[in-house]
Amino acid sequence: MRIIGIDPGTAIVGYGIIDFNKEESKLITSGSIQTEKGKPDSTRLYEIHQDLKLIIKKYEPKVASVEKLFFFKNQKTVISVAQSRGVILSVLEGEKIEIFEYTPMEIKLAITGYGRATKTQVAEMVKKMIKYEKFPKLDDTADAIAAAICHNINYGVINV
Amino acid sequence: MRIIGIDPGTAIVGYGIIDFNKEESKLITSGSIQTEKGKPDSTRLYEIHQDLKLIIKKYEPKVASVEKLFFFKNQKTVISVAQSRGVILSVLEGEKIEIFEYTPMEIKLAITGYGRATKTQVAEMVKKMIKYEKFPKLDDTADAIAAAICHNINYGVINV
Repeated sequence: MRIIGIDPGTAIVGYGIIDFNKEESKLITSGSIQTEKGKPDSTRLYEIHQDLKLIIKKYEPKVASVEKLFFFKNQKTVISVAQSRGVILSVLEGEKIEIFEYTPMEIKLAITGYGRATKTQVAEMVKKMIKYEKFPKLDDTADAIAAAICHNINYGVINV
Repeated sequence: MRIIGIDPGTAIVGYGIIDFNKEESKLITSGSIQTEKGKPDSTRLYEIHQDLKLIIKKYEPKVASVEKLFFFKNQKTVISVAQSRGVILSVLEGEKIEIFEYTPMEIKLAITGYGRATKTQVAEMVKKMIKYEKFPKLDDTADAIAAAICHNINYGVINV
């Protein structure tokens, strides 16, 4: 099962595409869609729309696991991330991809067994769970990979 | 100048398309994109994406005036409206429409001279400012028309 994990944002949308199999799960590709801070929201959102569409057309994941907006102190951040999520969800729906959503806490819990695990703890576990050539340095990309693994733990083949 | 005014939401996206001229400004069409509450966010957002694209292709407005998210007490509402706004802004950008944004207060101020005017006061003024065959009953549609007029007052031909 090929899953795309996505960590939404306006400046950075992290993504990771993983093939999950009983024998061995492998990171196919990962990266981030980055948009420039000085540009208008609409331009940045359309870039996210276009880039995500290209990534999906190229790698053809069947399922998406998207990090859910859970809690923010800063309302401006909420709006910005939610706008990006809106575009991402619309693109996934348009490409007929099945969508699942998890909060950061659900993702941490699924991977480490502890909902308040640090990013380092999550990354260490993730590295043990999948094969990869180069593990991404960017937090947003690592978070996207973690989201994909979280969905696989809940519905997939890793814990069979 | 043909302007589309848009009032974003997930359940209802109001829109109104107006031709502004020095002699007479006319409401070309208005209405709302409505999505079902029970459906997943992604399905509703993609419907907004598709319907707005069709409306734009049909009526070819050059400029959009979109109501800005200003203040909400309910964080769930903020997220839902922002997701819809993200899709709307991305579609407008993709269709190469110039985008302007106004807060509800800016719209009321431009139309009635008073930032805290009631919906009825705004609607009464709007009705004097443009020609129309049937004025929409839905608040969200009336708000969208008001957004278009607000932009015209700020940049357009009505107050020349």
